[in-house]
Amino acid sequence: MEEANITLSINTLWVVTAAILVFFMQAGFAMLEGGLVRSKNTVNVIMKNYIDMCFASVAFWAVGYGIMYGTNATGFIGTDGFFPSDLAGWDATVLFYQMMFAATAATIVSGALAERIRYWPYVFAAVFLSSFIYATFGSWAWGGTDDAQGWLRELGFIDFAGSTVVHSIGGWCALSGVILLGPRTGRYGRAGKVNTIPGHNLPLMALGAFILWMGWFGFNGGSALEANASIGQIALNTHLGGAGGVIGVVLALIFKRKPILMTLTINGGLAGLVSVTAGCATVDPHLSLVTGIIGGVLMVLATELLDYLELDDAVGAVPVHGVGGAWGTLAAGMFFRGDLFNPGIIGIQCLGILAGMAWAFGVSFVMWSVMQKFVLLRAEALHEQRGLDSTEHFELGYPEFQRDALHEGVE
Amino acid sequence: MEEANITLSINTLWVVTAAILVFFMQAGFAMLEGGLVRSKNTVNVIMKNYIDMCFASVAFWAVGYGIMYGTNATGFIGTDGFFPSDLAGWDATVLFYQMMFAATAATIVSGALAERIRYWPYVFAAVFLSSFIYATFGSWAWGGTDDAQGWLRELGFIDFAGSTVVHSIGGWCALSGVILLGPRTGRYGRAGKVNTIPGHNLPLMALGAFILWMGWFGFNGGSALEANASIGQIALNTHLGGAGGVIGVVLALIFKRKPILMTLTINGGLAGLVSVTAGCATVDPHLSLVTGIIGGVLMVLATELLDYLELDDAVGAVPVHGVGGAWGTLAAGMFFRGDLFNPGIIGIQCLGILAGMAWAFGVSFVMWSVMQKFVLLRAEALHEQRGLDSTEHFELGYPEFQRDALHEGVE
Amino acid sequence: MEEANITLSINTLWVVTAAILVFFMQAGFAMLEGGLVRSKNTVNVIMKNYIDMCFASVAFWAVGYGIMYGTNATGFIGTDGFFPSDLAGWDATVLFYQMMFAATAATIVSGALAERIRYWPYVFAAVFLSSFIYATFGSWAWGGTDDAQGWLRELGFIDFAGSTVVHSIGGWCALSGVILLGPRTGRYGRAGKVNTIPGHNLPLMALGAFILWMGWFGFNGGSALEANASIGQIALNTHLGGAGGVIGVVLALIFKRKPILMTLTINGGLAGLVSVTAGCATVDPHLSLVTGIIGGVLMVLATELLDYLELDDAVGAVPVHGVGGAWGTLAAGMFFRGDLFNPGIIGIQCLGILAGMAWAFGVSFVMWSVMQKFVLLRAEALHEQRGLDSTEHFELGYPEFQRDALHEGVE
Repeated sequence: MEEANITLSINTLWVVTAAILVFFMQAGFAMLEGGLVRSKNTVNVIMKNYIDMCFASVAFWAVGYGIMYGTNATGFIGTDGFFPSDLAGWDATVLFYQMMFAATAATIVSGALAERIRYWPYVFAAVFLSSFIYATFGSWAWGGTDDAQGWLRELGFIDFAGSTVVHSIGGWCALSGVILLGPRTGRYGRAGKVNTIPGHNLPLMALGAFILWMGWFGFNGGSALEANASIGQIALNTHLGGAGGVIGVVLALIFKRKPILMTLTINGGLAGLVSVTAGCATVDPHLSLVTGIIGGVLMVLATELLDYLELDDAVGAVPVHGVGGAWGTLAAGMFFRGDLFNPGIIGIQCLGILAGMAWAFGVSFVMWSVMQKFVLLRAEALHEQRGLDSTEHFELGYPEFQRDALHEGVE
Repeated sequence: MEEANITLSINTLWVVTAAILVFFMQAGFAMLEGGLVRSKNTVNVIMKNYIDMCFASVAFWAVGYGIMYGTNATGFIGTDGFFPSDLAGWDATVLFYQMMFAATAATIVSGALAERIRYWPYVFAAVFLSSFIYATFGSWAWGGTDDAQGWLRELGFIDFAGSTVVHSIGGWCALSGVILLGPRTGRYGRAGKVNTIPGHNLPLMALGAFILWMGWFGFNGGSALEANASIGQIALNTHLGGAGGVIGVVLALIFKRKPILMTLTINGGLAGLVSVTAGCATVDPHLSLVTGIIGGVLMVLATELLDYLELDDAVGAVPVHGVGGAWGTLAAGMFFRGDLFNPGIIGIQCLGILAGMAWAFGVSFVMWSVMQKFVLLRAEALHEQRGLDSTEHFELGYPEFQRDALHEGVE
Repeated sequence: MEEANITLSINTLWVVTAAILVFFMQAGFAMLEGGLVRSKNTVNVIMKNYIDMCFASVAFWAVGYGIMYGTNATGFIGTDGFFPSDLAGWDATVLFYQMMFAATAATIVSGALAERIRYWPYVFAAVFLSSFIYATFGSWAWGGTDDAQGWLRELGFIDFAGSTVVHSIGGWCALSGVILLGPRTGRYGRAGKVNTIPGHNLPLMALGAFILWMGWFGFNGGSALEANASIGQIALNTHLGGAGGVIGVVLALIFKRKPILMTLTINGGLAGLVSVTAGCATVDPHLSLVTGIIGGVLMVLATELLDYLELDDAVGAVPVHGVGGAWGTLAAGMFFRGDLFNPGIIGIQCLGILAGMAWAFGVSFVMWSVMQKFVLLRAEALHEQRGLDSTEHFELGYPEFQRDALHEGVE
């Protein structure tokens, strides 16, 4: 092979490997969310992930990729490259990688709204989210060419692998849905009482978290879109960020004299990983650890705040992805290697964070509202009580073990 | 490193990575099939996968590799290279990759015959299948050298990663076994009534499907046996094939006004992946999607046909691997890039499909029949009723949760 | 890219990929051990793995890496390189890889002591184990530079990927803990009666084993710290070792006329993988198979010996990692390619095996004893009876399915 071919082969090899890892994050989300809901809704949650991955992939290929990476004269949206059919070599590799990212963005929402959103409205929203809401913001932060860049990219906005572009965008879309849908029946009692609705299968949840963590190495490591010597450092920072998130949760819960729940601990690791996603290529290892620790603490606080506001996020997607992503984007600016706490950098990061929040929350709020008005968004109370698996999917997750639950109508 | 070494290193790196992904498909099959049977048979199904992987790997190393890739003077079988012991470098890499393929072929059968085949006869069949039935057909389609090729390879038969060589061969061996074994007790009632026997753990099934999907990127992407710029396109086509399969199932079930079951949807994704396996290197992305969609539709129809014929395939291996593989091999000919619908290409594909069906169905029918005659192939009725886990393996999958089931004799 | 950069990129790519696979072994351990305990302790076991991975990673970064790979003037311990903060390129890659190894060593212990050790003492021990006990022995066998090597390395001790350095060290630390903690309540009855305490979720256990097996390809394949043509052979040997372990268990159990339990069969595969870890780069394929077979047989014998001695290893970590690792280190010497059964090599291997056993057992015995004296090491009898999930973690693994168990106090 010639030198140019060798370089192309190496880059292809790494980006494809990374994309495969990002693909597997779908399994991570499905298991994490499937384990965190009640057994009567586990098929529903997993079906959401399985179907939205397929539909969102095709929609991103058809439309989203052009919006995100097409010619971007205005800096606000790409306008060509739809339905690419004669892709070869490197272009196909990049499309494959980005398609996996888009599917990830779609699926962040699924857990937050679990156990009471109707199935097909969710699927429609996931497709719209990944092929339009995510892709458009992506065109701002990552799109365009050197001549005509996305406007945030042109300002120098730092979001290496998507703390804001992927995670916060998904988190804010989830937040608007949580507000409009309302909490699950029985979640909040009188006088501010918060009723825990325990996930039915915590080993499954933990498995999902391990899978997500593994996938993150591809998510962050592949975002350079080349295989160079820096991917070891990116992976190291990613891991320290995740470990930091766990440490942050443990510290926060000790400080608050609360039990160190596995569900919170696991979400802490994910919040740390989300936090370090923006800066993993440009932050030193010890500051990656700090980024993760603070991400974990903020996740605990955000979880409490949501419960105080009686906003019912069934799996903690808003604290993990929304809040973790916003903090991580800020941290990437604050801890920029060789230029710590530069107000100019921090300002642009804040602009990007707020632009993402406004765009994603605003457009998704309209989307959920329109669906609320024209099709039923929330499952009927009886369906919610019986569980969406039997009422929407006609299959149970564990038909041999749920019998009693079905007969007794246990929630 | 010199240039030749670099090329060798890159290719080694990719083929080993891909082989590791193919290895992990064993976990996918084990979880998929383990979740799709009743809890009383889940240890049995997983033990089949675990043991056949080990025995088939060793048997393929001892015998199968020589049959498949040894000197192939006649075009019908390889005749040297058995028990390779001084392998180094590239040869070891290729053997490792092919060994993982052989183990995959073996394990396709396990699910179809689940819940009523005796354990050791199955293990023997799996070893025979992978080291002889699969390896021999492999020598036809992929074997030999440029001077003395396998006869199908010499004709120009297109089966890049094994829609026929691996999947259909496995599927037809399963079909002959399904015919000879007969259905599970109670599966078909009077007057054509089909009784669903629900899988006991659908989250586990879904996890298996995600793992298989991930593994498929190695299965298809590694089949070039080199790391070049085309593996991104192969991965993209693979993913679109799988997504197409899901879309095909959804469309077919909407058209038939039937519920969109998760079990069928997941099998649809797998059927799409099987379908795109033959042509993933030589078909454009939009036609990969079409290949997958049709594969999903055919899987639904084949599932109904089997039930109509009262052929009880416990996990849908024949519709997914047999039918999906045959269709995919045809599609690889029809949609060949730059030469669509060439009758010559299509003719050779049909020849290969039929040759695979005749060889695999025929030899395996003899194999099952001989075993039927000389050793008991089917578990005793009482064992089937109690479940093979307690009668053959003396361990239960979930000893704390199956108590009532054991006492009450629940199926 | 220039040639030097290409080589660096390829090596980085492979070592990062391998490290990601080793990371995923944490999920394997968590699922394997989580499935092998009773459901009332599954959250506890998984939390151990999740937390020790995070804490041990940070501790290894802070201290362990310096101890293991810092300047090693005496050959007995590294003395610089703590808290590395300005790592870049290759150094970060190597640290990331080694960090994943250290976390693995920590987690081997968790299963053996499951169901009765208190949580925080375990976490402390895991951190001490990985950042001091493991790292120090690692400095003997792998540490130093060409000028000042670790003393075992200087003698020519062969332990390519850590049969002794990682697995036996973990196994002997587990053994000392098992001796000091005592068996689970009810495990051993009068007159030598051994009561089986069945794992609550064998599919989960099997999934863990498949994940571990996959991870092993990174564990062994990455240990060359470069991507060269030999990694295919390493992977092949690794797989044959694992398959051999399964075959060894099957043979041993047939010979003893005992049922071929899935739990033992799966542990046999792991014992084979442990066994082949030391010699996978320097042993021929057929002798890798032999190494694995003997490893599987020894694992069965060691399991029986432990029960005879009434040493209660809840998941078989000592037979698999301790005994398998010791045998594998010996086998690497006996079956050294091109120099079989060289007494000089074998002698040095025995020295290393014994040094590892003395160091790890001795120091960990002191560690457990000190903890026993100053903090409570063993959970209270009531907590053990109720399960550590509810008493230490305030969450249940399967809250919907464990109700009866909780009410009835089922063990």
